[in-house]
Amino acid sequence: MSRLESLGRAARQASRQLAMLSTTAKDQALLAIASALEEHAPTLLAANQKDVAAGREKGLSSALLDRLLLNDARIAGLANDTRSVVALPDPVGVEIEGRVLPNGLRLSRRRIPIGVLGVIYEARPNVTIDVAVLALKTGNAVILRGGSETLHSNLALVRVIRQAIEEAGLPKDAVQYIEDPDRALVAELLQLDQYVDMIIPRGGASLHELCRKQSTIPVITGGIGICHIFVDQTADLERAVDIVENAKVQRPSVCNALDTLLVHHSVAKGFIPAVASRLQQSDVLLKVTPEVEEILQASGATIRRDIAGPDDFDQEWLSLTLGVRLVKDLDEAIEHIHQHSSEHSDSILTNNFEHATRFVQAINSAAVYVNASTRFTDGSQFGLGAEVAISTQKLHARGPMGLEELTTYKWIVFGQGHIRP
Amino acid sequence: MSRLESLGRAARQASRQLAMLSTTAKDQALLAIASALEEHAPTLLAANQKDVAAGREKGLSSALLDRLLLNDARIAGLANDTRSVVALPDPVGVEIEGRVLPNGLRLSRRRIPIGVLGVIYEARPNVTIDVAVLALKTGNAVILRGGSETLHSNLALVRVIRQAIEEAGLPKDAVQYIEDPDRALVAELLQLDQYVDMIIPRGGASLHELCRKQSTIPVITGGIGICHIFVDQTADLERAVDIVENAKVQRPSVCNALDTLLVHHSVAKGFIPAVASRLQQSDVLLKVTPEVEEILQASGATIRRDIAGPDDFDQEWLSLTLGVRLVKDLDEAIEHIHQHSSEHSDSILTNNFEHATRFVQAINSAAVYVNASTRFTDGSQFGLGAEVAISTQKLHARGPMGLEELTTYKWIVFGQGHIRP
Repeated sequence: MSRLESLGRAARQASRQLAMLSTTAKDQALLAIASALEEHAPTLLAANQKDVAAGREKGLSSALLDRLLLNDARIAGLANDTRSVVALPDPVGVEIEGRVLPNGLRLSRRRIPIGVLGVIYEARPNVTIDVAVLALKTGNAVILRGGSETLHSNLALVRVIRQAIEEAGLPKDAVQYIEDPDRALVAELLQLDQYVDMIIPRGGASLHELCRKQSTIPVITGGIGICHIFVDQTADLERAVDIVENAKVQRPSVCNALDTLLVHHSVAKGFIPAVASRLQQSDVLLKVTPEVEEILQASGATIRRDIAGPDDFDQEWLSLTLGVRLVKDLDEAIEHIHQHSSEHSDSILTNNFEHATRFVQAINSAAVYVNASTRFTDGSQFGLGAEVAISTQKLHARGPMGLEELTTYKWIVFGQGHIRP
Repeated sequence: MSRLESLGRAARQASRQLAMLSTTAKDQALLAIASALEEHAPTLLAANQKDVAAGREKGLSSALLDRLLLNDARIAGLANDTRSVVALPDPVGVEIEGRVLPNGLRLSRRRIPIGVLGVIYEARPNVTIDVAVLALKTGNAVILRGGSETLHSNLALVRVIRQAIEEAGLPKDAVQYIEDPDRALVAELLQLDQYVDMIIPRGGASLHELCRKQSTIPVITGGIGICHIFVDQTADLERAVDIVENAKVQRPSVCNALDTLLVHHSVAKGFIPAVASRLQQSDVLLKVTPEVEEILQASGATIRRDIAGPDDFDQEWLSLTLGVRLVKDLDEAIEHIHQHSSEHSDSILTNNFEHATRFVQAINSAAVYVNASTRFTDGSQFGLGAEVAISTQKLHARGPMGLEELTTYKWIVFGQGHIRP
């Protein structure tokens, strides 16, 4: 039995114990984690310092260094986030439906934990706490594999978690970490289908791709958002400028940020120079079709821009770049989105009821908006209380995943000696 | 673009049209299929005759030949089954939840079709109709790949379906079939993640294994049932004999049939000879532990039996074979099931409330029974109206999958110019 197999086996064992726990017992373990984080802050900061120093030596950018940094305020934040999960309702044990069949069998479906989660993530130590806490709240065991840049921080965090939950009476193997940096272990984890029930990648497109390709365990893929806003001819154009700016500029590095702006040709002459002038304030770079360029030139716009290349409408920009094109009508907008969207978040700005209805009907993205910024696709914005991941695949969960999406169900059947005729 | 890619692309295109259809339009297409099956019965029977003749030449068993046979009565059955799907409620369009967020955004989740289903199945022509009809009812396009033994029948059926739905105004590419018998096409289908949203294998363990290993598309695995009944010390032993007989004998070749019988040691002396004598009437072969053998010998039982080998409690027998062992208490029964169950269907026979409760809590199989036969794990028995597959994995769906499990959802967000602060 390989080391990973014994880790998987221990996780499965722990998950069986977790599945039997009351909400109170799980919540007490979470409170113990929160206190332990505060108590062990000096140890955590010392471990984190090693990662930061190594990162500096490796020449990581200051943005990346900031992502991996822990300080007192951030540790307090992690502890408080943990306490706020305690306040969320526990989905486990809920009866989804229950009825008596004609033959007298009493049938119900009850929410249960999924079992063992495998979570593969990149350089952010807060994910270690987030994921462990959400998994424990829903009675799941978790096997973590973080980025090498945060190894010391992650190991210290996992030690604190394991000790805290053990003292709270939970099996410490409910939370385990793959320490060995060997990348082959990721491949091995993805094939550990005997012990792991779900893989959640949290990182860029290539990580999701790797998981989808190599895993024999169901994977929640997501995280890639090629997002659209269509400005219809009846849109409130002043609000439209605000919405486009918000969707593009407020946090350009995330998956629900705007990538492509589609403008109805009949409002383009007024709208495009207005939105360009606003976006110029944030130094946005436009990738425009020749028609759009013509309008910009005619208006004397000075925003930075290029003529869009053939792939520019298939980009998740993750930066202050925006594709812009005209469409002749709603159908052309829908067709463009069907062809280029990653089915994450797409929005129509319109005051035409029929157009709004048809857009909502035709666009089957995880989140479809009318008259709002795409930036709202987010677990806390949607009121889920917590976000495990954002799914852009269609099975099990779509869009922001909360606690309920970390559960499955079983059918429970009560008979009185029933046999099938 | 390969042939399979253009097929996938056509399916995606068709799925977009299907997603916009009303229930009435979809139901009319199903009624058209039902009538067309009856109308074209002679053509279908002629095509089926080719498969039957080829099967005879290949020396297929009479059981297999019977599985692939169509006759007038079976075609009438297919037509009637199709009409009964019309009567089922359409899950598409249902709002799962809807509320207004504190910032005034109106948020809801709406059921939508999954999109394009890939279904790989073995030699039974009725699956072609079943799957196409359930997919169309839920607005999904489907790419079918049946076994080579029924190729002529399947092609004839698909031709009838395509013509019928086209006449009813649906895109005929909503139902497509991979004709080329080359097995490499299955591998290609499993990687067609750009166009196919879900793979449903319907066949034996090796097909499910292949799909899990090779697919980059989410797969619904299932179909393998290592099912247990635990006879507790307070069980009604007369009923227990009936239940065990029903679970083992009524249809031994299916996944919800009983594989292993666990008996509380304190009732073993009375119960084991009684159940053995009943099972002997159906010529069941027992695989028993030495303790069980001792009881059988002492009682003078003459049922066929072997001492169980090391793997005999990890078998899905699919035949009139049954593993039997004693356990010292409920905990040991639970432990055995945790170790050996495929998490399909497991049952406890008991009159002890605490034991029933604990078994239901501890066993996380897709279906957990108290005082009933495991044979009820079935879409029609559970009142789902239709069964697409039985899932034993934990994501998306567990146990019998009905129409609702062929849908996903999208989040719909209505704003009035909302931007994220």
